This record gives sequence, C-alpha cells and structure tokens, in this order.
Amino acid sequence: MEQKLVNMPKTKRGLVTLEKITQSAEIEFGTKGYYSTSINDITKKANVALGTFYIYFPDKFSLYCYLLNQYSHDIRKFIAMKTESCEGRIDTEKLGLLGFLEVIKLKPYMYNIIWESLYVDKSLFIEYYESFALKYIIRLNSGKRKNEIRDIDSTVIAYVLMGISNFIGLKYVMFEKDEDLEAIVDQVMDVLKHGIFL
Amino acid sequence: MEQKLVNMPKTKRGLVTLEKITQSAEIEFGTKGYYSTSINDITKKANVALGTFYIYFPDKFSLYCYLLNQYSHDIRKFIAMKTESCEGRIDTEKLGLLGFLEVIKLKPYMYNIIWESLYVDKSLFIEYYESFALKYIIRLNSGKRKNEIRDIDSTVIAYVLMGISNFIGLKYVMFEKDEDLEAIVDQVMDVLKHGIFL
Repeated sequence: MEQKLVNMPKTKRGLVTLEKITQSAEIEFGTKGYYSTSINDITKKANVALGTFYIYFPDKFSLYCYLLNQYSHDIRKFIAMKTESCEGRIDTEKLGLLGFLEVIKLKPYMYNIIWESLYVDKSLFIEYYESFALKYIIRLNSGKRKNEIRDIDSTVIAYVLMGISNFIGLKYVMFEKDEDLEAIVDQVMDVLKHGIFL
Repeated sequence: MEQKLVNMPKTKRGLVTLEKITQSAEIEFGTKGYYSTSINDITKKANVALGTFYIYFPDKFSLYCYLLNQYSHDIRKFIAMKTESCEGRIDTEKLGLLGFLEVIKLKPYMYNIIWESLYVDKSLFIEYYESFALKYIIRLNSGKRKNEIRDIDSTVIAYVLMGISNFIGLKYVMFEKDEDLEAIVDQVMDVLKHGIFL
C-alpha cells in the first residue's frame, strides 16, 4: 500500500495548523526551490514548532507531493464550479480557461512548484499533467458523442488546450498584471472556434 | 555596457573545448539542477582543468545564460532552416512545429534548464519567452498583411502557438517515445485550421 502523504487532522485547530504549514511551504518552495528549503524553514515561517510538522507529514517529499495534489485538485474544483451551469462545450472551455487564469492569479508560485517537479521527481511531473489530460480527454470524448467537438485525437486536443492555458497564463498573469482576462479569453476562443488562418 | 557572457575562442581547438564545457553543463544542469551543479562538476565531466572554465566564462551564471541564449538561437535557426522553402503561413507553421519537436528530441534537458530559470532569475525566464514571442509576432503581422492570418491579437496567437508547441513537445517527445510526429503535427494543424468545435 502507498504511504499516506498526510495525516489529516480531525480538529478545526489541526486544520488551521496544517493550512499554515502548507501555505508557508508554498512560499518557501516557490521562492527558494524544493532543495534549498528545509523543514525548519517551513515551520519557522508557519510559526509552529519543528515537531508539529511530523504530526502531519512524514517528510519534506510527502509535503511536496501533497502540494502538487492540492494544486491539481484546487484547479479542477474551481473550474468545475465556474462551469457547472455551462451548456455546451464552447461555454465550458471559455469559462474553464477564465477560471484557470483566476486560479493562477491566486497562486503565484504554482508554475515554479509544479515545474520544479522535473527535478524533484520527473514521474511526478508526468503524473501531474497526464492525470489532468486524462480527465480532459473524458470530457472531450463526451463532447464528441454530442457532436460538439470535431474528430481530432482527444489526447492531442487535451495537450493543445493545456498548453494554451499554461502559456496564456504565463503571459497574461505572470508577465503582465491587470490584464483584461475576459478580453484575452475571447481572443483565445476565437482561435478555438475558427483557427488562426484565413 | 553589459558584461560579456562568453569569451569566444579564436581557434578550432578552443571551440571544441568550449563545446565540451557547454555540453557537460547541459547534462549537469539538466539532471542535478543549476544550484546543485558546481563549476568543478562541469569541468570534471568535460574532462578539462578547472582553470580552463575561466578562459571562456566569468562564472556559472554566465554559462547558464549562454546556454539559454544558445537554445533560443538553435531552435530558431533549425526552424528557419526547416521552413525556408515554405510558401505561406500554413506550411510554415506545420514544418516549424515539426522542427521544434525534432530539436527538443535532440535536447532532452531543454525543458528542465529553461524552466529552472524561474528560480535562477525570473527575468531570464520572461526574457526567454518574450523575445521568442516578439519574433513570432513580427511574422504573424506579416502574415496578416498578406491575408493569411485572421484578425486576432498577434501576442495572443504567439503565446497560443508557443503553448501548443511546448505541451505537444512534453507529451509526444518527453513523455512518449517513438511517436509518429508528423501524424501528431497533422492533428495540431487541423486545430489551427478549423478550430476544435463542430
């Protein structure tokens, strides 16, 4: 059986402490990187005793994996929430992309932490995007059955859409601030509806 | 005046040594990361004396910047070569994407090294993609004047295309091996020609 990444607290107070630890880890990993961050750095930043860390996590690696899982979960949950009343694939993609951009606005270290997994453990990086793609593919296939999506390989479309979201996020959330994200999303949707060529 | 990143050798033998150093740096940075790699690791791997390093580079950071510049230059040069006889934007995009996938097949550490710049010096990361985008935008604008490209913001299109190339590269070069890259590129071109929706 796989080792548990986290011992979930049973009390509200425990949840608050866990949250303090993961938020501090996000900042420490996100600015200094995984290897330059010690458990001591994290607990100091979180203002908890070093021993408290081990109530929740067996080691630094487990906390890192837990953070990656949280990102994946948070992004999907937020997008699901944004798109729950959407009818049809076009609206879902549009509000989904907008939701993604809003999430990374709230999580400025997300790219750093996810992409550092290339060094921490490449299989985590692959697993992160493959599991994201897999859920996308299921929805695209359902869109195909409803005649909403053209007959293009669903894995290709999934990675095309993930690439677009991530790089539009880099440009209009990380590189520039205060962009009109809805106007950007409209431009992207124009590409997804009609392509780029005349 | 900016400090020079590299003292370019004037002899063929010097060029060979420089090449040995940069290739070793690529492997060391690519596997252990920038911060865990010492100049000593690089010269050892390159089988040259530690002092030899300083004939070419003032420090590790300069070598790292030089590598990033080389990637950017190599990718553009290879794509320009692949697409020089192309007529029209559709063909250029198609062979350009194929060229990009072929380059990263030859440079397995490219993603690691470029994306680690988020930690090494974020402005390098931004500069890397912004300068790439800028050259793309010039070509897209020229395509618009020739009525080959639809009236969508060129910066948005540039980042859409860069996102697609990078994530299709992740999936079909890094995650999977021996994929039929031409068939994948055909599927991507279908998206770029007609969009994804029915």
